[in-house]
Amino acid sequence: MTIRGKRNQQRMKKLTGAVLLVGGPANSADLRYATGYATVDPAVYVQHGARKWLLVPLLEKGRAQKEARRGVKVLTPFDLKLSRARRRRLADWILALAKAEKIKRFTVGAWCPAALVDCLREAGLRVRVSSLPMFPGRAVKTAREVALITEAQEAAVFALRCATAFLRRTRISRDGWLLMRGKKVTSEDVRRLIDHALLDRGCLGTGTIAACGAQGADPHERGSGPLRAGQPIVLDIFPQNLASGYWGDLSRTVVRGKANRRVRAIHRAVRTAQRLALRKIRAGVSAERVHHVASSALERAGFVTRIKGERPEGFIHSLGHGVGLEIHEAPGVGPAKERLRAGNVITVEPGLYYGGLGGMRIEDTVLVTRTGYRLLARAPEQLEL
Amino acid sequence: MTIRGKRNQQRMKKLTGAVLLVGGPANSADLRYATGYATVDPAVYVQHGARKWLLVPLLEKGRAQKEARRGVKVLTPFDLKLSRARRRRLADWILALAKAEKIKRFTVGAWCPAALVDCLREAGLRVRVSSLPMFPGRAVKTAREVALITEAQEAAVFALRCATAFLRRTRISRDGWLLMRGKKVTSEDVRRLIDHALLDRGCLGTGTIAACGAQGADPHERGSGPLRAGQPIVLDIFPQNLASGYWGDLSRTVVRGKANRRVRAIHRAVRTAQRLALRKIRAGVSAERVHHVASSALERAGFVTRIKGERPEGFIHSLGHGVGLEIHEAPGVGPAKERLRAGNVITVEPGLYYGGLGGMRIEDTVLVTRTGYRLLARAPEQLEL
Repeated sequence: MTIRGKRNQQRMKKLTGAVLLVGGPANSADLRYATGYATVDPAVYVQHGARKWLLVPLLEKGRAQKEARRGVKVLTPFDLKLSRARRRRLADWILALAKAEKIKRFTVGAWCPAALVDCLREAGLRVRVSSLPMFPGRAVKTAREVALITEAQEAAVFALRCATAFLRRTRISRDGWLLMRGKKVTSEDVRRLIDHALLDRGCLGTGTIAACGAQGADPHERGSGPLRAGQPIVLDIFPQNLASGYWGDLSRTVVRGKANRRVRAIHRAVRTAQRLALRKIRAGVSAERVHHVASSALERAGFVTRIKGERPEGFIHSLGHGVGLEIHEAPGVGPAKERLRAGNVITVEPGLYYGGLGGMRIEDTVLVTRTGYRLLARAPEQLEL
Repeated sequence: MTIRGKRNQQRMKKLTGAVLLVGGPANSADLRYATGYATVDPAVYVQHGARKWLLVPLLEKGRAQKEARRGVKVLTPFDLKLSRARRRRLADWILALAKAEKIKRFTVGAWCPAALVDCLREAGLRVRVSSLPMFPGRAVKTAREVALITEAQEAAVFALRCATAFLRRTRISRDGWLLMRGKKVTSEDVRRLIDHALLDRGCLGTGTIAACGAQGADPHERGSGPLRAGQPIVLDIFPQNLASGYWGDLSRTVVRGKANRRVRAIHRAVRTAQRLALRKIRAGVSAERVHHVASSALERAGFVTRIKGERPEGFIHSLGHGVGLEIHEAPGVGPAKERLRAGNVITVEPGLYYGGLGGMRIEDTVLVTRTGYRLLARAPEQLEL
């Protein structure tokens, strides 16, 4: 999401003053990235030159000290010598630290709570709200981060294999429903099976998709109700590892039984689009260029993107996005001028969506390298089960 | 978390102008409460007098229209006739709506993104940032909401029963470890078992706790490593129902095998504190009073609360909190002057925490009624398994 326009962003390219993050409902990923500490209650991170502080409630001090990276000083409202009344107010934590450390200016991210910004400004501090990422380095993964994302991605592959093995074992009723032990198999059954498999690998599936037929035409529809043979079932699996906080992201579209010609053609087109886009990936190429390779391949194959009535159809989303401590993070891989860099971890997920027919999406997560890309985990590719 | 001080809050008791919510990483619970729509991508809700708008990306329009309550008008950047460049900027969505509907002033919540507030102000709109809840009505549950929280709470009870049945089946090794099929049983095993059970009931366990012995002394420690007989194991289970978004919250502390006298005494004290606090609950009583009943019962039983070295010990947290679309929401049940109201759904969770020994917490979730309380789901209470 972009809150400010491009012009504003360019005006503010340089972050000045101290960096200030507020964790809690929002911004926890940045805070975890900066400190290693996973917030439960709101917490505050302040970085001023080389000095780094993590402010947490007294109850969290032990865990924060255990988890926080070297060089990050953990403080509580007690350390800041706040009165009882002020101990519960985040703004007062920051004001106390600012006073003690003689910090006069802060830079906060776009999602910093507005009340906090107003409060600091009222107290005479200068607060600049920046729409730039607080930690642009987050988009370039370390080897350790790549390993952690790979772990989550392997969990996704494992869960996908469990789901396809299960679907293969279903019987097809005379009127085209999928049956297991005489009962209709539902999207809910498959999503649950996937989420159980993810748990077995220490991961949480928070929005697993198993959308059959027409339901798949909406890329965010999770799917519900009985599954049918011969229709595309979009499986989108994006686990977060409970211990590390890192995500994986994988989609396949499968058909139990025979796919008709049109579905096979769409599958072929999406696969080709993914292959061509992957070939284009390497450090230095623009994200837009990679997106364009996929979208024009789909168009060449005869699949147009347009708004039909009120409903968009065709290739209606970006080709991909960065993956890390958030499921969607920088860099975006869509119609934007950003260039890919070695160390980016991105999804490559062309898809086609048409009203009556449903959805077709194939998604893998890859590491961008100097000369190309590296698939983080290999998943089966066949359409028909 | 309180961002502003009390004085500021009082000054702003009345919300004026239009109410503006920004969903996404933060504030999604308010947005869901207001509209019935569960955000994936950022979304905007505007309420101006009796008129209500939900602004979503084009891709989300279908789902938003399906999920949004009657009277909420769903609009996309296309409906607002935004140029291609402006379609991705949340602030531009709001500015376009404000212009079309002649809205000049907004009130936003404390956690509204600061960048958005700055942007709207720069465009000449008056934006008041309020630290009051946007929807105070959220704290008073409807019968439907109580039923949904009860569903999540019943899932928690089910998961607890699975965990205790499993622990009962463990063997105790000669040196006091819990064994299953010859292998040491760990916190991770128990947490996973609980999370699987929750999934079977359509719920997600995002931070399940199974903390044994000294680990339990930190109320937020999830627990890790092998479990021991004779030591308190804190089980804290707080599932979110995947379909409804509502949470439940349940804790029990158990000992596999024999508990020593001190642990039994602590268990008795915490149980008594809970019982006395529950008896105090009814509409009109102050939350502080209920908290106090529990804390003084614990003190009377000889369990003091203090800061020892740098570490707080004893009854070191609030007695409880509201539960609904967020796991922690209004009303707080701690040392604050708020009064309970009929329809509040709150946890009652006295606990004791001591360095060497660990933690002891007993938590139930109840509905506050005119004359008392109603337990949402009954869970077993015995200490020793």
